[in-house]
Amino acid sequence: MGVSVFAPASVANLAVGYDTLGLCLDGPGDEVYAEFCDTPGITIASIEGDGGKLPLIPAKNTAGRAAQAVLEAVGNVRTGVSLKIHKKMPFGSGMGSSSASAVAGAMAVNELLDRPFSKYELLKFTAMGEQVADGAWHLDNVAPSLLGGIVLVRDGLTLDVQSIPVPDGLRVCVVHPDIEILTKDSRAILSDSVLLGDVIKQQSNLGGLIIGLYNNDLELISRSFKDHIIEPQRSKLIPHFYELQSEAFDLGALGCSISGAGPSVFAFCPNADVAENCGVAISSIWAKHGITCQVHQSGINPVGAKVI
Amino acid sequence: MGVSVFAPASVANLAVGYDTLGLCLDGPGDEVYAEFCDTPGITIASIEGDGGKLPLIPAKNTAGRAAQAVLEAVGNVRTGVSLKIHKKMPFGSGMGSSSASAVAGAMAVNELLDRPFSKYELLKFTAMGEQVADGAWHLDNVAPSLLGGIVLVRDGLTLDVQSIPVPDGLRVCVVHPDIEILTKDSRAILSDSVLLGDVIKQQSNLGGLIIGLYNNDLELISRSFKDHIIEPQRSKLIPHFYELQSEAFDLGALGCSISGAGPSVFAFCPNADVAENCGVAISSIWAKHGITCQVHQSGINPVGAKVI
Repeated sequence: MGVSVFAPASVANLAVGYDTLGLCLDGPGDEVYAEFCDTPGITIASIEGDGGKLPLIPAKNTAGRAAQAVLEAVGNVRTGVSLKIHKKMPFGSGMGSSSASAVAGAMAVNELLDRPFSKYELLKFTAMGEQVADGAWHLDNVAPSLLGGIVLVRDGLTLDVQSIPVPDGLRVCVVHPDIEILTKDSRAILSDSVLLGDVIKQQSNLGGLIIGLYNNDLELISRSFKDHIIEPQRSKLIPHFYELQSEAFDLGALGCSISGAGPSVFAFCPNADVAENCGVAISSIWAKHGITCQVHQSGINPVGAKVI
Repeated sequence: MGVSVFAPASVANLAVGYDTLGLCLDGPGDEVYAEFCDTPGITIASIEGDGGKLPLIPAKNTAGRAAQAVLEAVGNVRTGVSLKIHKKMPFGSGMGSSSASAVAGAMAVNELLDRPFSKYELLKFTAMGEQVADGAWHLDNVAPSLLGGIVLVRDGLTLDVQSIPVPDGLRVCVVHPDIEILTKDSRAILSDSVLLGDVIKQQSNLGGLIIGLYNNDLELISRSFKDHIIEPQRSKLIPHFYELQSEAFDLGALGCSISGAGPSVFAFCPNADVAENCGVAISSIWAKHGITCQVHQSGINPVGAKVI
């Protein structure tokens, strides 16, 4: 018998923590089923839900590579594990799709092998999987997807990640428009340099957001949730961004910004009603301009990836 | 009978929070004595300890201007208050000397008038006083000197300042070398732009520092206490900076960087022994190179300015 693991989507950056902050959603997410097989190493038996776009070669697939990394670390070269990957969320959405697959792949193998590694120890392998997607070593999606909650990546190379407490009742609404933005384009649009004055503002807001989360101070969270660096550049790629952001604020969202590299946007909300209203409003604005989208309502998932 | 107020020195920036973070020292600091007099408005009767350098005209003196602002806000135009300012710390040291005077001036008048304002409400007036010194609106010295503790200035214009909890037992050693650096030169040396990669590292460290302070995690504080933006530029103005920083780390300091705009340096220490050793080591290195200095050991003052 095999093991199935679900790893959830995540929202990276959170407006003021570019490449640093991320939060874990309840869903959507990806599932990976792992079972022993006779062929040594990792085999990807099937991928569903990707429209045939993802590679079956394990070393080129984020779930496959993460799974390989776990198996290699255990060191039993004759063990064979077969994976069935079920993509249940869109890729290129800015919701950490490649990360969810990497996390599910690593954790499914770890569970199948009777947990040689703790969840935190899996972080390294999930990052190795994620690296397949764009060549970079980023933890701001894999860390929240794996560990849950809101996570600060203090230093990716040394796997120094820190959980930040989350006030009760917060809800997130993520809206994914049916337009495509490649992560590399979304990165390429960013200037290499930032004005010192904007750095000061961003730092003050990052500090304010963290203090607000610790102190359960929703007003402070709201005042702090303003991106002076990334959003002014990336919003150009997202149609009608400022119109829908303004609407979300009017409806009571504590913050509204771009999820990861986009094109999804998210509203950070004090409760389910506000999140619901933001979802309706944002999708209506896009619909009015002929853009279809999917709305995802979620709490901040405190658990992260889990066996199902 | 009049009122005497002592306002302590402060350390701004704390390596990773340029123009944002500051902490309050036990001492040194400035004293202002306020008493009623017949001449309406603020009169500066005397200034001691400044070597005759500070102006006696209230509007041009940080203590005088802050005191004026309090009096104006109360609105009784016939009230006259005379101030005696006792500078008990060097100016141009990077320890918030002009701020200490502004804080002491504002609070002394407020006490004399039977506290029309809360301590927090005085913040605005202290910033107006501080503004006399260099024309800018900065709270990262006045806020900690007034309120105590470690303070994050989320937004200076709206007086949005946040206190961060401080682990017990931390000690700070500030060493002031007898060299002069003008704040305007120390600001002019800074580039207007920052590499995005350095912004990410600084943000991660600022987040790590705040989380470390909340969680009482001295290891995390230490890992986070590294300035990727300001120190690499300003250290040029401070002789032998990297030699003494390296020595402080070897002795167990959690962090060591430039205090405010310099030339003072500070070591952020887990206990009094380490702070003591850092003071001896740093002053010895400077002495070896012919630079005399004063060493100040301090806890992190939780109270800030106070009546004496």
